[in-house]
Amino acid sequence: MVPFDGKKLTRLMEQSGLRLLLACARHNVRYLTGGYYFHFFAQTSRVGRSQYLPFVGVPRGQVEETFYVGRVGERGQIEANGLWIPHRFETAGGTLPAAEGVIRALKHFGLGEGTIGVEMPFLPADAFRALQHGLPQANFVDATPVLDELRAVKTPAELARLRSVYDRVAEAIQAAFADGQPGITTAAIAQRVSREMAERNLSFLWAFTCAGPGTLRAPSVARWERGQVLHIDAGGEEADYLADICRMGCLGEPPPLARDLHAACLDIQDHVRNLVRAGIPCREILLEGERVLRAHPFAPYGRYVAHGIGMVPYEQPDLSANQARPLEAGMILSIETEFIHPEVGHVKIEDAVAVTQSGCEGFGDQGRDWHIIRV
Amino acid sequence: MVPFDGKKLTRLMEQSGLRLLLACARHNVRYLTGGYYFHFFAQTSRVGRSQYLPFVGVPRGQVEETFYVGRVGERGQIEANGLWIPHRFETAGGTLPAAEGVIRALKHFGLGEGTIGVEMPFLPADAFRALQHGLPQANFVDATPVLDELRAVKTPAELARLRSVYDRVAEAIQAAFADGQPGITTAAIAQRVSREMAERNLSFLWAFTCAGPGTLRAPSVARWERGQVLHIDAGGEEADYLADICRMGCLGEPPPLARDLHAACLDIQDHVRNLVRAGIPCREILLEGERVLRAHPFAPYGRYVAHGIGMVPYEQPDLSANQARPLEAGMILSIETEFIHPEVGHVKIEDAVAVTQSGCEGFGDQGRDWHIIRV
Repeated sequence: MVPFDGKKLTRLMEQSGLRLLLACARHNVRYLTGGYYFHFFAQTSRVGRSQYLPFVGVPRGQVEETFYVGRVGERGQIEANGLWIPHRFETAGGTLPAAEGVIRALKHFGLGEGTIGVEMPFLPADAFRALQHGLPQANFVDATPVLDELRAVKTPAELARLRSVYDRVAEAIQAAFADGQPGITTAAIAQRVSREMAERNLSFLWAFTCAGPGTLRAPSVARWERGQVLHIDAGGEEADYLADICRMGCLGEPPPLARDLHAACLDIQDHVRNLVRAGIPCREILLEGERVLRAHPFAPYGRYVAHGIGMVPYEQPDLSANQARPLEAGMILSIETEFIHPEVGHVKIEDAVAVTQSGCEGFGDQGRDWHIIRV
Repeated sequence: MVPFDGKKLTRLMEQSGLRLLLACARHNVRYLTGGYYFHFFAQTSRVGRSQYLPFVGVPRGQVEETFYVGRVGERGQIEANGLWIPHRFETAGGTLPAAEGVIRALKHFGLGEGTIGVEMPFLPADAFRALQHGLPQANFVDATPVLDELRAVKTPAELARLRSVYDRVAEAIQAAFADGQPGITTAAIAQRVSREMAERNLSFLWAFTCAGPGTLRAPSVARWERGQVLHIDAGGEEADYLADICRMGCLGEPPPLARDLHAACLDIQDHVRNLVRAGIPCREILLEGERVLRAHPFAPYGRYVAHGIGMVPYEQPDLSANQARPLEAGMILSIETEFIHPEVGHVKIEDAVAVTQSGCEGFGDQGRDWHIIRV
């Protein structure tokens, strides 16, 4: 019934001293509801002089008493699709009525005192002020680390969703390459990525499109010409689960140097992938990639980055040099290998792997080789 | 050079006692930059445990001294596309570094004291708190009404953009109807609307899809069947300029009652449109629609709503009953007429008109008649 790990959340809340967790960011609301978000505001929240602001409240140790504060107009969608959350409070639109709904809910449950975890980087300032004024006995602290950690290990259903999103983003990028021709602008390529994602029922997030030998990654009037390499580094999502993939293409045969840099990207990826399995300290992912890169003749042009991904670009696990924490099966790692060389441009491969007990599974691995467009 | 009405902004800031305006909501940043927004975060702002947060600051009476606070990584896009704003401050990612960038900018300009207008429903709570702590001599007030009013009258370039967005949303809805067939779910229809918008280089915002005689408007597993009416009430945008249109379709011939209700929608629209021109008090738009609706035999099932639209659904002009303010040429009105009848379902037409000196111009008027799918 409860779509997340209630025991883990209780433990995290105990560690952080939270009596109540109050989530409001779209991805965390979606996570705690198990997929529900009011469709009217799922792509944009702005309305009138304010914005849409739903809340999910979870009292510590009483996950079954979770409550939802949303707009009156959500009733139809909730009734049609179901929502596991037992308590619902309805408000008028806007951030202040939403905060008032929360105050009403907390007074109803006797939860208006003690330490309340809110998402400080996402909670609007006026709603925060209203909560402070309306709940003078409460102490508000930032709960984004609790939510970030709660989401760290993906369930089989989440892995299936992410696998599918990665496949479709990879396909969308391949389709956009196939449309390439001499003189096409990098802005037109990005727009094509967006359309190809929509065709696959994804929401487009971004596309960096970089035509060599230039290094401008923002889509622009820059043109892709014969013999030049191009990278498409694109993100797309479905129900807040996102994929971030970078692939290489060339109009005609890639220059030998570009081929070497691309091969180096895959070589570093292979070394890191060979290391990934449950139990390995997170920092080893960083250190191994850096070690292989340093040994490479093109190292001065290279960059290596790895980070967790799922509902947020850059989420848990943190793979930085001081992280001794072991990888767990169900974590997703986004691995970025790239070289920026003045002669050919920006060669980059970005992929994700899901950690398993014995190794890892590549997500969206289609098209890691060159996309060569015959011209 | 300055892409908005600097004199109007100075006047509005004087009236509100603002020494400095500090915008951070995507649409207002885009408005003040004249179209620029960092493409990486234009569809989603979440990253790590925080979110992307740019600021545009305008000192009162010194529009030419406007400054921009954004991420280091934006430099390429800004240099490629240009940005009219003369002063730029670069920060690391996240809401707190963004707030620190603002504090740095304000100290640089000696603007850290006095009344500063921020967007309280959009400014994240942690950034607000950091601004309060870092600028103890400043007094922060909500500036969303100033920005809402600043955007009230559209320029010719904005009208051209909105006309085009309305045309494309109308076309996308028509294409989605054309794909209709007995048994299709309302969720599949909404997804089709999304794809058709992407084909037209629009970002999908929402689609309400309501198959009669039911009244559930959220896309769902509900099916559209022979002889049933369906409305598609959809929003799409380009560069934060949005269109919101509702159109009617039927699988086969609409029932006579549905035809009558649809005709009543258009009749009310016509009466209101005949009234629209610069100089008319805003409230007359509301009162005229309500008057015509009340006189209609189906009035008990009817609803009439009108509101400004442009970068935000429901923006200026406010058309409520106490608004004596005259309409101005360049304002956009979204006019909604609808009947919810237990026998046929929810019949609705929503359109927009741009106010002109002598009348109005319909935006996206294609397909106001029935979309009859032969089955």
